Amino acid sequence: MAAPRAGESDRTVLLQHKILARNDGIAGRNRDWLRQRGVLMLNLMSSPGAGKTTLLERTARDLAGTLSFAVIEGDLQTALDATRIGAAGCRVVQINTGVGCHLDAAMVASALRVLDPAAGSMVIIENVGNLVCPAMFDLGEAVRVVLASVPEGADKPVKYPHMFRQADLVLLSKADLLPYVNFDTERYTSDVRAISPGARMMRLSAVTGEGMPDWYQWLRDRNPAAAGR
Amino acid sequence: MAAPRAGESDRTVLLQHKILARNDGIAGRNRDWLRQRGVLMLNLMSSPGAGKTTLLERTARDLAGTLSFAVIEGDLQTALDATRIGAAGCRVVQINTGVGCHLDAAMVASALRVLDPAAGSMVIIENVGNLVCPAMFDLGEAVRVVLASVPEGADKPVKYPHMFRQADLVLLSKADLLPYVNFDTERYTSDVRAISPGARMMRLSAVTGEGMPDWYQWLRDRNPAAAGR
Repeated sequence: MAAPRAGESDRTVLLQHKILARNDGIAGRNRDWLRQRGVLMLNLMSSPGAGKTTLLERTARDLAGTLSFAVIEGDLQTALDATRIGAAGCRVVQINTGVGCHLDAAMVASALRVLDPAAGSMVIIENVGNLVCPAMFDLGEAVRVVLASVPEGADKPVKYPHMFRQADLVLLSKADLLPYVNFDTERYTSDVRAISPGARMMRLSAVTGEGMPDWYQWLRDRNPAAAGR
Repeated sequence: MAAPRAGESDRTVLLQHKILARNDGIAGRNRDWLRQRGVLMLNLMSSPGAGKTTLLERTARDLAGTLSFAVIEGDLQTALDATRIGAAGCRVVQINTGVGCHLDAAMVASALRVLDPAAGSMVIIENVGNLVCPAMFDLGEAVRVVLASVPEGADKPVKYPHMFRQADLVLLSKADLLPYVNFDTERYTSDVRAISPGARMMRLSAVTGEGMPDWYQWLRDRNPAAAGR
């Protein structure tokens, strides 16, 4: 059983750097374009099934008429999430990545062309469910939100530090399941503080509504339509 | 905002094919080596926090003295899982992938050299928590087990079909949480049947012990040490 050959590996790393550099260039153009238009874009990332879509559904319904946002949905396959988000009243574009484990800045650029978000509006990207790859790809967002769910366990921040390190906001979702699982809240909290000292932390449940007002206030504080009022 | 340039994308796909072809070559050598030695290797895959480590901990403790297995642990960072598995009585090798979203056949080859599994033994790989990338990388395993947990929701098979399509066994874990979440068992079951018609399905909970005897019997039926007895 041969060990990996260095040459192949070097070429791989070189191409990965090129791909990331090219992605960062497009992400920068997305960011400039959004800033000029006064649009705030948020990148929401988590494991599969941590509750991103349910959070956005409830948020759209609860904030209808007071704060609106469009959604870019990233999934390998299906338009299930886009259908749910559309039914909750949002404008939505679905991107299917096939076997791709993350959205990239070019995909988001294409989605933004379709959405054509109005000046002063918000766009929320629901990234592919994955705690690894999406952390590497800047999409041009202004803020990054990482969602970790209670049943996943308290060790996710230390096991997936790249994801949590870049978060502006870390949401602990499915708080309604805390009575039924073994989740060490103290350990989780101190790990997130150590890995991402600047991140705001919130605990919520889109089922019971616990913690949702804090999340809504956090969104309102960043709503470009409200700036300067 | 420019669309992706075709040339870059073509080179990327070409290199991806080369990486996968090279991986498949090493995986084939792993498989030949294990077959000659009479060792059964199992690749266990799931989302982050779906319960792979807890399942293996309980399995090792419950089967102590009757069926033993060594474990190859894949994680981006930390040796937390290896420590847990070692405490449950298994021989274990931890591989840290850094920012890598999956184990590859070369990493497993190195781990097998360290483990040096005895003839007639079993090796269980706990892959990196990720429903996307590990599906693409053959490690030389004889059987693939995909674990989906109840709180992730019933839509995972249709949203991550590549992972479920290749499974020999699909475990629905954390069955103890069924009373507390909205999980459409019928839909999940019919989706898994449609995507992976040949896969065996089981429902279990490593907390309550529900369904564990079926899983143990499935392991025993594949135990090379018992073959021909």
